[in-house]
Amino acid sequence: MTQTTDTLPLKGANLLVVEDSHDDWILMKQAMIRAGMAVKAIWVANPQAALNHLNESLAMGIKLPIMILLDLYLPSRESGWQLLQDIKALPEPVPMIPIILLSHSSDSSDISGSYNRGISSYLVKPSDFDSWTQLFQILREYWQETVALPNLNTNW
Amino acid sequence: MTQTTDTLPLKGANLLVVEDSHDDWILMKQAMIRAGMAVKAIWVANPQAALNHLNESLAMGIKLPIMILLDLYLPSRESGWQLLQDIKALPEPVPMIPIILLSHSSDSSDISGSYNRGISSYLVKPSDFDSWTQLFQILREYWQETVALPNLNTNW
Repeated sequence: MTQTTDTLPLKGANLLVVEDSHDDWILMKQAMIRAGMAVKAIWVANPQAALNHLNESLAMGIKLPIMILLDLYLPSRESGWQLLQDIKALPEPVPMIPIILLSHSSDSSDISGSYNRGISSYLVKPSDFDSWTQLFQILREYWQETVALPNLNTNW
Repeated sequence: MTQTTDTLPLKGANLLVVEDSHDDWILMKQAMIRAGMAVKAIWVANPQAALNHLNESLAMGIKLPIMILLDLYLPSRESGWQLLQDIKALPEPVPMIPIILLSHSSDSSDISGSYNRGISSYLVKPSDFDSWTQLFQILREYWQETVALPNLNTNW
């Protein structure tokens, strides 16, 4: 695992996880490690804590997350969507951070409503740990090793 | 290859490619086939043709593309960004179609400016055919086999 993480370009970057289920967070954290994600995951359990983290990072010049993994039902989908809108309304460069929605819901109105509010992609949460690990391997391969992300800490 | 494409959920879906270089389009088309992309790629060479395609699909009830691959310099980056804004201003459900930017440029202001205008992700074009194939394999794995896309043809 060390060899893999050492070669990744985004080693040490922050990733913000907004997730109200502690169980899901533990699963995600362990799956990220097993998948060789080179990022430092920061967990917040509710929308207000997410906004606080982003606002404090902006105010204090702390490194912003390169990506946000967002649960939808926090605990209602309206809470998740409100947070999405609040994040998009924060000062630059926060609105350009890609937001990946991760939800147990595969309801088509949840999916469409989330794309309509500016998410980058929507992923349905897997049901077992091996699938979580596989999901993070694909996220790593796509977002860490393939995509060009905005340089948040020099362009504002 | 047939076995792979037969099992993909989005087999037969349309993918819109906006690309003013015919050479790049030929490379992309061949790489998509080699990577087992199960989509039908529709090529347009300029912003106006892209808008015409989307408007005609809306007006005539033709299947909308599940994703848009967009070149940035068409021929200037302002043309690419204007097209991005024009697509986002079209009637529902067009604005929720994920837009993947594909450009030879790795300039950080091109990357940031594109995220600021609502792209889903930014990819730097590879320099050889094998890398193009590998890129489309990763795009297939992420967007076709992992992400939940909005159902464009029933939610409007």
